[in-house]
Amino acid sequence: MKNFTYYVPTKIHFGKNQIQHLPEEVASFGKRVLLVYGAGSIKTLGLYDEVYRLLDDCTIVECSGIEPNPRIDSVRKGVKLCKTHNIDVILAVGGGSVLDASKGIAAGALSKEDPWELTLDAKKIKVALPILSVLTLSATGSEMDQTAVITNPETKSKRGFASDLLFPKVSICDPTYTYTVSAFQSAAGVADIMSHIMETFFHHEEGCDISDQVAIDLLKTCVKYGPVLLDEPDNYEARANIMWAGTWAINGFLVAGPGKKWSCHAMQHILSAYYDVTHGATLALLEPAWLAYILNDTNKDRIARFAREVFHVEEENTRACATLGIQKLYAFFTETMKLPKNFEELGIPTDANLEALAKECVKVRPGGHIDGYEVLEANDVYEIYKRCM
Amino acid sequence: MKNFTYYVPTKIHFGKNQIQHLPEEVASFGKRVLLVYGAGSIKTLGLYDEVYRLLDDCTIVECSGIEPNPRIDSVRKGVKLCKTHNIDVILAVGGGSVLDASKGIAAGALSKEDPWELTLDAKKIKVALPILSVLTLSATGSEMDQTAVITNPETKSKRGFASDLLFPKVSICDPTYTYTVSAFQSAAGVADIMSHIMETFFHHEEGCDISDQVAIDLLKTCVKYGPVLLDEPDNYEARANIMWAGTWAINGFLVAGPGKKWSCHAMQHILSAYYDVTHGATLALLEPAWLAYILNDTNKDRIARFAREVFHVEEENTRACATLGIQKLYAFFTETMKLPKNFEELGIPTDANLEALAKECVKVRPGGHIDGYEVLEANDVYEIYKRCM
Repeated sequence: MKNFTYYVPTKIHFGKNQIQHLPEEVASFGKRVLLVYGAGSIKTLGLYDEVYRLLDDCTIVECSGIEPNPRIDSVRKGVKLCKTHNIDVILAVGGGSVLDASKGIAAGALSKEDPWELTLDAKKIKVALPILSVLTLSATGSEMDQTAVITNPETKSKRGFASDLLFPKVSICDPTYTYTVSAFQSAAGVADIMSHIMETFFHHEEGCDISDQVAIDLLKTCVKYGPVLLDEPDNYEARANIMWAGTWAINGFLVAGPGKKWSCHAMQHILSAYYDVTHGATLALLEPAWLAYILNDTNKDRIARFAREVFHVEEENTRACATLGIQKLYAFFTETMKLPKNFEELGIPTDANLEALAKECVKVRPGGHIDGYEVLEANDVYEIYKRCM
Repeated sequence: MKNFTYYVPTKIHFGKNQIQHLPEEVASFGKRVLLVYGAGSIKTLGLYDEVYRLLDDCTIVECSGIEPNPRIDSVRKGVKLCKTHNIDVILAVGGGSVLDASKGIAAGALSKEDPWELTLDAKKIKVALPILSVLTLSATGSEMDQTAVITNPETKSKRGFASDLLFPKVSICDPTYTYTVSAFQSAAGVADIMSHIMETFFHHEEGCDISDQVAIDLLKTCVKYGPVLLDEPDNYEARANIMWAGTWAINGFLVAGPGKKWSCHAMQHILSAYYDVTHGATLALLEPAWLAYILNDTNKDRIARFAREVFHVEEENTRACATLGIQKLYAFFTETMKLPKNFEELGIPTDANLEALAKECVKVRPGGHIDGYEVLEANDVYEIYKRCM
């Protein structure tokens, strides 16, 4: 069990109609609000009108059109609006992309640096506007963490950055807002959540019982309720459990003890920077391909534990058990959750230069490789990509 | 799954030598420190000298001699010191009692009210001094929650109160500081932790998968590592897992969804107010006696689940399984953890008027009864007390 610092100061109002808390929470930060949202699904949901109704004593400036993989230009646009309109507080209404863009805006609003510079070196973030959020998609966990991922199409790069100043102050998590999320996006969200958990669960640190057990629990919660989202999109219990699992998958609890040495997200980022593919759906292909590729006699026990506890594989031979678990994971994503079965279905062209992507993927990592559960060099990444074709 | 608000802003530095963070953390709140501690074990541990060494640029005022069930007079003494010496920040070094007393002091220091009035009506707490803690005992979880329990010997009452202003800002949780905790106190701490978890796990709310599973995990962690504390007091892995389990047992995570309807703590408080018995050791008797008394056809499934998952009871008949689990729980506390087997061994005289205590116990509750997992009237409490004799 490694030493760690755990600090997650976000207040969560969870449940039906928790948006009632919005006026009092906004009021404690000011009256000039930047409302950040995406393509307009918040209007279909009625959330847009509800926000205006609840905040009728505030000045609301809008920053809409945030993309699924939010781009640095959207962040720059939001920063400009904050500076022009002297914004007090950012209200992010949407999923992880809207939240991540809002974090970039919050950091840039009080800085003289270009926002992209802040994503490249988060230590430059010395102060940030407060962020409140209303979550409409269960996936990234950005509602209760200090990290964000922003894409720069010019440089074909997707950067994750983190600062304790970027924790949302308050997040309103009402599972009913996710009832209308499409089957595909719901499934991709579940895959993203499970990926966050697996990235942490697969570690080599001894004695992390609590983190390990909770990771298994959260994975079991996803496997139990994930399929319900497709069959009964308005099942409250399922939406609530997936939403809460998504928050705890990545808010700092699971890495307390094992530390954070992720693999698949590094391999994913370069793919969506180039092809704008859905984050969770890409991870759904990478996770089983990665596990199958790295499986060896040192890590087989842990992968077999995953197979037994999450997918009830009963095979006694440890390595065979691990392999069956990986197959079950792939089948869960592609058959049960109906996500794309390969890169082509996902939207990566068959003539994509995977070897070059693999090289570029590791190039930006410290040391020139992915220092995850197992160290991955460019050729390892290439082999994993090929397994996804 | 009930609606809930989850808010736990305490920063935890967990692990060996994390006290190195103390100077920077204190510095962010000021230079005039009230050092609160108990009987002096922090001197044996070397912590006392370490605090003076690390905070050599601060003015330290001492408030020592905090009792195991902290008394209102100790709180009053601390409040007076804060006012006299214009204290900026409270540093609690000790276990739950020192932390709870510090919370009372923090609330009283900036108030004109007598501290006992604040425990009776926590809404009167409008502002409080910041609290930092260095934990030396795994039990109450007070290092990461907003509650405190204070005893008033004059009125023979023990009051729990809570305010979001009383979360410690920072808690340093170094498992090595608990190596020297006696076998009895270690066991009582484990019983206290398990009681916090069970009080929440036994609920009637549907669909709280995550809370339920984590509760089971934390109980399994206690059952696995608790006995190790007695055999190998300096086993880091065991001390660390128990410490982290203790924090999460009661910091607000488990009640997110099920809500909080506790039973045994209400029955315990009156006993330690009258007899100054060890909190955790008393709970170790009350929990199994309570479960055995309330077991019925409505709650047998959940108690049987507890029996199967925590104590691996394999009996197929649900009610019999539940009963066996309760017996295993009693045996775990009294045989494995070597805690007192009955009230007499605990220190409650055989001629204690349990009927009168039961009446007094429920009298102070809203509605005149304990509104817990099952409603308990005075005669129910009396029957449960008798089972502990």
